[in-house]
Amino acid sequence: MHTTPLYRQLANHYLDAIRSGTLKTGERFPSIRLMMEKHAVSLSTAVQVCRELEDYGVLEARPRSGNYIRQPDTLPKTVVSTPPPLDTGAYLGIHEQVSSVLKASQRATIKVNFASAYCAPELYPLKILQEHMIKALRQDQHLLGVQGSTGGNLALRNILARRALTTKANLTAEKMVITNGATEAINLALRAVTQPGDTVAVESPTFYGLLQILESLNLRVLEVPATAHSGINLFALEQLLQSPERIRALIVIPNLQNPLGSIMPDANKARLVQLCAEHGTVLIEDDTYGDLVDTEQPLSTLKHWDCSDNVIYCASLNKTLAPGLRLGWISAGKWHERVEMLKHTQTRGCETLSQLAVGAFMKTPSYERYLRRLRKTLTQQRQQISAAITRYFPPGTCVTDPRGGTLLWVELPRHYSAMALFREALKVGIQISPGDIFSNTQRFDHFVRIGCGAPYSPKIDEALATLGRLLENQR
Amino acid sequence: MHTTPLYRQLANHYLDAIRSGTLKTGERFPSIRLMMEKHAVSLSTAVQVCRELEDYGVLEARPRSGNYIRQPDTLPKTVVSTPPPLDTGAYLGIHEQVSSVLKASQRATIKVNFASAYCAPELYPLKILQEHMIKALRQDQHLLGVQGSTGGNLALRNILARRALTTKANLTAEKMVITNGATEAINLALRAVTQPGDTVAVESPTFYGLLQILESLNLRVLEVPATAHSGINLFALEQLLQSPERIRALIVIPNLQNPLGSIMPDANKARLVQLCAEHGTVLIEDDTYGDLVDTEQPLSTLKHWDCSDNVIYCASLNKTLAPGLRLGWISAGKWHERVEMLKHTQTRGCETLSQLAVGAFMKTPSYERYLRRLRKTLTQQRQQISAAITRYFPPGTCVTDPRGGTLLWVELPRHYSAMALFREALKVGIQISPGDIFSNTQRFDHFVRIGCGAPYSPKIDEALATLGRLLENQR
Repeated sequence: MHTTPLYRQLANHYLDAIRSGTLKTGERFPSIRLMMEKHAVSLSTAVQVCRELEDYGVLEARPRSGNYIRQPDTLPKTVVSTPPPLDTGAYLGIHEQVSSVLKASQRATIKVNFASAYCAPELYPLKILQEHMIKALRQDQHLLGVQGSTGGNLALRNILARRALTTKANLTAEKMVITNGATEAINLALRAVTQPGDTVAVESPTFYGLLQILESLNLRVLEVPATAHSGINLFALEQLLQSPERIRALIVIPNLQNPLGSIMPDANKARLVQLCAEHGTVLIEDDTYGDLVDTEQPLSTLKHWDCSDNVIYCASLNKTLAPGLRLGWISAGKWHERVEMLKHTQTRGCETLSQLAVGAFMKTPSYERYLRRLRKTLTQQRQQISAAITRYFPPGTCVTDPRGGTLLWVELPRHYSAMALFREALKVGIQISPGDIFSNTQRFDHFVRIGCGAPYSPKIDEALATLGRLLENQR
Repeated sequence: MHTTPLYRQLANHYLDAIRSGTLKTGERFPSIRLMMEKHAVSLSTAVQVCRELEDYGVLEARPRSGNYIRQPDTLPKTVVSTPPPLDTGAYLGIHEQVSSVLKASQRATIKVNFASAYCAPELYPLKILQEHMIKALRQDQHLLGVQGSTGGNLALRNILARRALTTKANLTAEKMVITNGATEAINLALRAVTQPGDTVAVESPTFYGLLQILESLNLRVLEVPATAHSGINLFALEQLLQSPERIRALIVIPNLQNPLGSIMPDANKARLVQLCAEHGTVLIEDDTYGDLVDTEQPLSTLKHWDCSDNVIYCASLNKTLAPGLRLGWISAGKWHERVEMLKHTQTRGCETLSQLAVGAFMKTPSYERYLRRLRKTLTQQRQQISAAITRYFPPGTCVTDPRGGTLLWVELPRHYSAMALFREALKVGIQISPGDIFSNTQRFDHFVRIGCGAPYSPKIDEALATLGRLLENQR
């Protein structure tokens, strides 16, 4: 039997006080010392209470002054994405703003690309994968002559399930479907549990690809504030879940969020899963980046905390292993059969060859060795780019310090325009991702996402210096 | 400037007479001789008028008796596919009847499979494709390290466009998107031009995969009768298009229809395209099987007759070249940009490797040589299976005689049950496709689709004899 630990009981006690207005925004929070006396608890318990509330997004530590009740970020409005009428011939469609940014980038000649979330090709184990592919082709002469099963290659699914055990999610090969990347996995999850017109919540900011998927499926988007510190703000989410607007599903990137780089603390993951289950909101988890975490200890997934089969787990290998392969997977629990049928009607089973090659590689110890090497390389690349940004960008620029991955989320002082920087940079062959496309609001118009997938070089250094100069021109 | 040829003018004249009831169902049609006198036309013109009306489905030639006005097949009712409520846990979903047939087949141990529309693996040029793949892998060491473009590999698109020229459709590489098979192509076409709840017409019978796609997209299905002789019945279609129900799109397999094997005469293709354009119904063409036609002369596509950019062309290589590859394509004309964005949000670009290998093979003359050999083989296999069906099945069984492809559509005498045969056959390891799944009506409950993709053998002969015996037991 689970009993709620003392620190969590106390944290809930204070959360109630904040909700009811007994403790008000901006007010000083009781000191550690006072809490120890008042509740007769140990120092470590009192500290844990504060950390819990901080993770929850309601407490803010101010240096040499104590903890204060924090205003959760202003709740964004519901944004209804109604596609323009069809049949207009030139209709570009699916999120005009994102589309126009992507199209502009395609037209330009790119010399330095900071807009990619991928690693540089040379960081991936391409030679090994190639050899596994050639071996698979030679081994089974009928490989290309037989249609793959809808669910995907069973050997690969077994390997993925066994590997998930170490990251503490209990997936089974039978209830897993191999997809064309996480993109298709999330499409299938949404198609399985929503109807057009339903409202789906996302983190704000979030990966613009998700906003495009939601618009393409005619779903209404609700943005829930998230921070680089601990991801989605659970206090804000809780308030939204209590509002009359029914939220059918919530898509969360719990580990190394794109673009924030945040990793949700375990306590938050557990609470998020519980909240969604309580409110009948399906939780869709995108775990594409988790394997790129700095530490040896794998990160827990939301699925791990899922007691009521309310989390749909989606992931992909194309950021961690090979961008040229389209290999993702979905573990949809009680919606598995519906997801499998939708996969069948949408694209049929994926090609077997890449699944065999990847499975053969993942079975060997060199896969983990490769990941360890990749993580170290990325840490270094992020640090070098971060240092250059501090050097070249205007004073007052803030850069995240994520514990893994390829992405930095850069906040410029408020009067700078990310979109203007994007346009000017494109003219000189430098591609960045302007913050505007990570939300349907204007909240991130002075943010920029910088990809650190390529090894640091004089060319990259020069490009960052150029970005700094372009920003100077904006003043 | 186009002028309507005389025979077409006369055909229209008689069509009007049939529509208005001046000429009635069952009535004898004026003889060739009478028409020559009455309209002062040549023998060949009079004959062409009759052929035109026959193709149109309103005239029936009775040997030694003349031509009679034919009752177009009874118009089937609109079938609304409303998916059962979600969240039921065990929900199988997407066309329960088709699903249950497919699931039953998956659970059984299959010894002889007549349910497949594919050729046997050994008929495909797998060795050559393998070598092209290995070559492509060795040639570009970064191949697996770079994400493919959304539209697909440009070299392959160019080859497909150039090849289409010979089959008389004017496609361009720029306005083409490579997809995960024709399945994804048709999904994208439907998502580009319909909204959930819209009505989409299909041929009846039609490939059950299409019915599944339509249900999965929450589209209403309207079935238009089609015959093995000339495909979709244009007279019935015309009446439907004039009814108040708005038909947003129509999906047609003009060449070697699945399951009928019909090839639409060119005049019908032209008229169909015109009809749809006039009524604002988008015509979606599935040209997956056309390359398997017996004759050297390639078949025209609907897209060829499309003057008003109202046809979306979809096709696939996985029946003609390699079932293990997921390579289809879509040429969506004025909807191209929307289709491209939907492809981006649904699955991103397809893997490059198979596109390179297929492109390299299709550029060589051995591709056409391979197709010619394959066609000859299939003709022989169809003839052998057809002969065996005539030998073993009950008297009164009718078998189609398609001009290509892998499929025979077998009509049993009316009191036989295709579904009972399916179930009994499965018990002894023989898989067939019961006619029931090719329609939302019961019209084909005594039809069976038999795939002839495998070389004739004693095992196949025995299996067909077994089917015959099982049918005998039904009496």
